[in-house]
Amino acid sequence: MTQHKYLLNENQIPTQWYNIVPDLPAPPPPALHPGTREPAGPEDFAPLFPMELIKQEVSQDRYIDIPGGVLDIYKIWRPSPLFRAHRLEKLLDTPAKIFYKYEGVSPAGSHKPNTAVPQAFYNAQEGVRKLTTETGAGQWGSSLSFACAQFDLECEVWQVAASYRAKPYRKTMMEIWGATVHPSPSELTEYGQSLLAENPDHTGSLGIAISEAVAMAAPHDDVRYALGSVLNHVLMHQTIIGEEALLQMQMASETPDVLVGCTGGGSNFGGLSFPFLREKMKGNMNPTIRCVEPAACPSLTKGEYRYDFGDSAGMTPLMKLHTLGHSFVPDPIHAGGLRYHGMSPLVSHIYELGLVEAESIGQSECFNGALQFARTEGIVPAPEPTHAIAAAIREALRAKESGEETVILTALCGHGHLDLASYESFLAGQMIDHDLSESSIAEAMKTVPVV
Amino acid sequence: MTQHKYLLNENQIPTQWYNIVPDLPAPPPPALHPGTREPAGPEDFAPLFPMELIKQEVSQDRYIDIPGGVLDIYKIWRPSPLFRAHRLEKLLDTPAKIFYKYEGVSPAGSHKPNTAVPQAFYNAQEGVRKLTTETGAGQWGSSLSFACAQFDLECEVWQVAASYRAKPYRKTMMEIWGATVHPSPSELTEYGQSLLAENPDHTGSLGIAISEAVAMAAPHDDVRYALGSVLNHVLMHQTIIGEEALLQMQMASETPDVLVGCTGGGSNFGGLSFPFLREKMKGNMNPTIRCVEPAACPSLTKGEYRYDFGDSAGMTPLMKLHTLGHSFVPDPIHAGGLRYHGMSPLVSHIYELGLVEAESIGQSECFNGALQFARTEGIVPAPEPTHAIAAAIREALRAKESGEETVILTALCGHGHLDLASYESFLAGQMIDHDLSESSIAEAMKTVPVV
Repeated sequence: MTQHKYLLNENQIPTQWYNIVPDLPAPPPPALHPGTREPAGPEDFAPLFPMELIKQEVSQDRYIDIPGGVLDIYKIWRPSPLFRAHRLEKLLDTPAKIFYKYEGVSPAGSHKPNTAVPQAFYNAQEGVRKLTTETGAGQWGSSLSFACAQFDLECEVWQVAASYRAKPYRKTMMEIWGATVHPSPSELTEYGQSLLAENPDHTGSLGIAISEAVAMAAPHDDVRYALGSVLNHVLMHQTIIGEEALLQMQMASETPDVLVGCTGGGSNFGGLSFPFLREKMKGNMNPTIRCVEPAACPSLTKGEYRYDFGDSAGMTPLMKLHTLGHSFVPDPIHAGGLRYHGMSPLVSHIYELGLVEAESIGQSECFNGALQFARTEGIVPAPEPTHAIAAAIREALRAKESGEETVILTALCGHGHLDLASYESFLAGQMIDHDLSESSIAEAMKTVPVV
Repeated sequence: MTQHKYLLNENQIPTQWYNIVPDLPAPPPPALHPGTREPAGPEDFAPLFPMELIKQEVSQDRYIDIPGGVLDIYKIWRPSPLFRAHRLEKLLDTPAKIFYKYEGVSPAGSHKPNTAVPQAFYNAQEGVRKLTTETGAGQWGSSLSFACAQFDLECEVWQVAASYRAKPYRKTMMEIWGATVHPSPSELTEYGQSLLAENPDHTGSLGIAISEAVAMAAPHDDVRYALGSVLNHVLMHQTIIGEEALLQMQMASETPDVLVGCTGGGSNFGGLSFPFLREKMKGNMNPTIRCVEPAACPSLTKGEYRYDFGDSAGMTPLMKLHTLGHSFVPDPIHAGGLRYHGMSPLVSHIYELGLVEAESIGQSECFNGALQFARTEGIVPAPEPTHAIAAAIREALRAKESGEETVILTALCGHGHLDLASYESFLAGQMIDHDLSESSIAEAMKTVPVV
């Protein structure tokens, strides 16, 4: 009988996260203090993060134990299923075998709770009362709200104003889990006030919302900040995706020839790919591993590898990453979770080392693939992973040309139940493939500090 | 280690549906032809349903094999998980053990695809080109759209106008799967035209939408109609829920003392409870089994057991069921899927036989329970199963009083990702518990034919 999904039991949930740093041929460049430009130490991060996460951020341990209190919450939705896309393969008439790891089974609907839960856990352990954060599409804000509810933490979210207005239901979802949600820019921070004074209808950006959430956490002893992507510890928490997928590919008796994952800040991509990259570096398999980014926000394929800020106001430490400039505002594509000016420093470093590739895809091709996917596999994908699906379809069509039985693995990192307006636009023929403005990138790159 | 979910593998999916009819102490009364008032025969149903479903509707076989082509699609989401609500139990400080079977893992987000898939399958097998149907909250229309996409059938959906306007994203979801969606009443049927002539802003009702979908199917040889609840074959397809839950409760080494399920047309309730009722009738267990209906549409607890129509225009065969009168229009509660004037004839019959109980609950209590549930168990429930959750919480609090370790089983038949507006209303303190108008029931009962 044809097998469609590969399921693990609760007692097969991996009990350690994988830290790829010690396995890399060269260490990633350190973060720098924004004032002194010297390597940032734990004390520079202490106003924002609990000590255990700061330790994880710079850890040289290959594996870090997942606490029991985190595993207990992971069990709400983990292990997540790995699917073989038999019906999509048939539609494409391809000899390729397409596998996808589905993270939309979490309560928030994406992979984000994999790190939201441990972040809330460690903060609660260290006596923190409240977490602040930003959210664009709403997946991260929802996930942290859910996680905070599990550990009796307060949660305050700055949601990019354009998204706050266009997607009221994400706000409702966060409130169901007990969070407080503000549009960003807000009157609650000096930076927000200054932007609203210039333009009362400011639509905001992820970088601005980060600045506001950071500003509201740093001055208080019992308030900390949580970031949903970009940082090393965040990507490490997400490796549970890839560790599970390794076990499930073994169940399917297959090893991937190509692994593709969508990249915004890099946490979904890193989560799926790092355990496979480990096996590749060990010589156990040899997959091509590729980042897929939106054509409207191509930090890897069009950005520069420079030290830059993680936020718009320039409050964070400087990180060496592929950047379009921290003041770059991407076009309003539907994949709000991929609209970030930079790439994770760790993914950037690994890309520079030549261990992974990158490509960019426009959103019409992505939604066209998503429609083919939904009509065959059933699940309606979030706008972000439509990039991974489109890349998987490109590979499957190449396999059709060559006649090869290519084994493709990707991550469907979330469902699109709260993003149906984007499909409405696509079905109505109103979706625009924004031309990337090279001059706006050049303009934004001028704001990148010279280090 | 505490176990949170009980998972089955694909090869443990039950391969037969359970037909409770031959196990009942008395046969259910037959449907009657609306004109002659004589028992309706297969030829009366043939313009609406394929012959295989008509056979299943009147079958005396205890078990019916699930075709391979149906099992193949079931595997997209089945077997569904059974959860132990440890965190909710802790919040309620109860010695009760609460188990819930979760059907929100299907692509459409509810239990409805369990019958949509076989209905589409049998229609496709018999050469049907298109299916028509109605939808209220949108769960059924989405499920049939998804199922039709799997078997290359066209799908045309009449969505209750109030819901069509308030929930545009359900329409988008149906369109993603390739369906055509109309608001009901529509200009496409004579009945719809007559209602719009009276009131161009008519908000519609489930009964009216059924009349329109039936009218658009009956005259065409290659078009059939599909119903998402009420009928015997629909409830039978849903028994896969209860058959799986039986296996999973065995894994948990528990038997339920109380089983509660929300009832609109009765298919979720029947699906979960009939296999357990079989075991109860065999003497293998002795759970109390209870229907939970909305206080605003209490067909079992306030309706009469009479022959009545399934739709508003009086086009369907007459069925003996608990009815509030086929012209009864329930108050606009958020649980659109429970706003139906009648109860399934089979559930009605079983209720009359004294095999199950019933209670009704107002929507504020339901949403209050849903919030407790979401903040502990993570999943945001659809408005319909908030009734089941509220009833389970009532039982858990009774157990707290008595100190008994009551084992409670319920079905969380769908998630609320497309129903967040109802939570928004609740969180804003704007939810109304409608007083049930006894006089409007009495008025509607006057339209029930005397048989």
